[in-house]
Amino acid sequence: MSGGQEDSRQTTGRIVVIGLGPGSPEQITPQAMRYVAEGEEFFGYFPYLDRLDLRADQKRIASDNREELDRASAALTRAALGKNVCVISGGDPGVFAMAAAICEAIEAGPKEWRALDLVVVPGVTAMLAVAARIGAPLGHDFCALSLSDNLKPWEVIEARLAAAASAGFVIALYNPISKARPWQLGRAFEHLRTILPASTPVIFGRAAGRPDERIEITTLGQAVAERADMATCVIIGSAETRLIEREGKQPLVYSPRFYASESK
Amino acid sequence: MSGGQEDSRQTTGRIVVIGLGPGSPEQITPQAMRYVAEGEEFFGYFPYLDRLDLRADQKRIASDNREELDRASAALTRAALGKNVCVISGGDPGVFAMAAAICEAIEAGPKEWRALDLVVVPGVTAMLAVAARIGAPLGHDFCALSLSDNLKPWEVIEARLAAAASAGFVIALYNPISKARPWQLGRAFEHLRTILPASTPVIFGRAAGRPDERIEITTLGQAVAERADMATCVIIGSAETRLIEREGKQPLVYSPRFYASESK
Repeated sequence: MSGGQEDSRQTTGRIVVIGLGPGSPEQITPQAMRYVAEGEEFFGYFPYLDRLDLRADQKRIASDNREELDRASAALTRAALGKNVCVISGGDPGVFAMAAAICEAIEAGPKEWRALDLVVVPGVTAMLAVAARIGAPLGHDFCALSLSDNLKPWEVIEARLAAAASAGFVIALYNPISKARPWQLGRAFEHLRTILPASTPVIFGRAAGRPDERIEITTLGQAVAERADMATCVIIGSAETRLIEREGKQPLVYSPRFYASESK
Repeated sequence: MSGGQEDSRQTTGRIVVIGLGPGSPEQITPQAMRYVAEGEEFFGYFPYLDRLDLRADQKRIASDNREELDRASAALTRAALGKNVCVISGGDPGVFAMAAAICEAIEAGPKEWRALDLVVVPGVTAMLAVAARIGAPLGHDFCALSLSDNLKPWEVIEARLAAAASAGFVIALYNPISKARPWQLGRAFEHLRTILPASTPVIFGRAAGRPDERIEITTLGQAVAERADMATCVIIGSAETRLIEREGKQPLVYSPRFYASESK
């Protein structure tokens, strides 16, 4: 590929949706770094873009948290003009993040968006990073649930919480709380206390792998929503989840590979 | 602990449980590579150890697939002797992998195992890698479920499948099939067909990111267990999961961020 007339037909744009992992540069995959190096324009929520060390020739288009669909359309528009566009997510882009917004925009958008090269680059999602810091709370069947009722009714969320807890899934809560959604996490704990034992381990995992990391273990009986913020992933054990006390160290929390009624 | 009295105190060993991601070297985090470089002894299922390029001074102890607990105990024994031990998993070590087996062994084992430094290094787990190759099927609430009935009764698995599907979770199935467990996946599809529409997208994601990758999209109505093997992660959509046809390309599959009964 060089200059001259070939130039004009060549560039079908590309849109790459990249997961940067939970926050530590050591947890970004080489694949993500390669696509970042190749990118021309970068769309994303500003704190995620802040994690990149872009070159002067790479363009940064930061936007706010709640503007996923507008951001997706803007990025696709640029890709359709032949640009090599990167859309940046924290964690994994396929888990409550930009990959679904891009697909949604493609489905609703002009036909030519379907012809674009779409690449999704997976990353370490928050619940995996939090779990790793504490043992293996996701060691057996688990679910990931967004607690945001911006895009789904609260009754659906409560029904899913009840179904997951009753069936024995460990529950990882994404988007547990925000200024606009202050009561939902407390309500979720209340609801779960009617289903699971008060001794069920609960983990507040904030900013796993980052300098401001804070990982706290408590029980469902004692869990209070105020311990979480927007950067927290909350993991609620199942009735099988166990705690191992360790002298001078944080306890380990794990969900066994076997079902308790079976012999060990 | 043996040796002279001072000797026995000084070397606290370390045990590091490392996730190598789904298979591509490009998807191994720098953190995982750093811990591998520092390790002295490496325990793991042999195909995972085969992915490492160990030095002559690094010792390899490979074992078979079903020996997780023995492997965990052997690794902890060496760490308690002061060795820097790595336990290698594919994907993420906290998802149906070695981190839970290590915790289980620590809980059941001698007190000094609790004093060991335990580090879990997260990785990109299979369902994320498969999802990335096809769009965003895990774009909203989902669960991960092991279909192996070696350590839990089949009725528990069926109850969890029903609970997850009825509540609207996308379902990622790990360990869907093996020579010793030939009928379970077919039974799971049958069971889910009584709950979900026949048109529900199903993805067979084999060896995502590896040269022998094979990603197939079908529907629940047409899904047959024979399309899966041990290296396959099967993703079953919810009633919300959508397909976007693309000319000359594989369709995209995604689960929208919004709940269908809400306005888009």
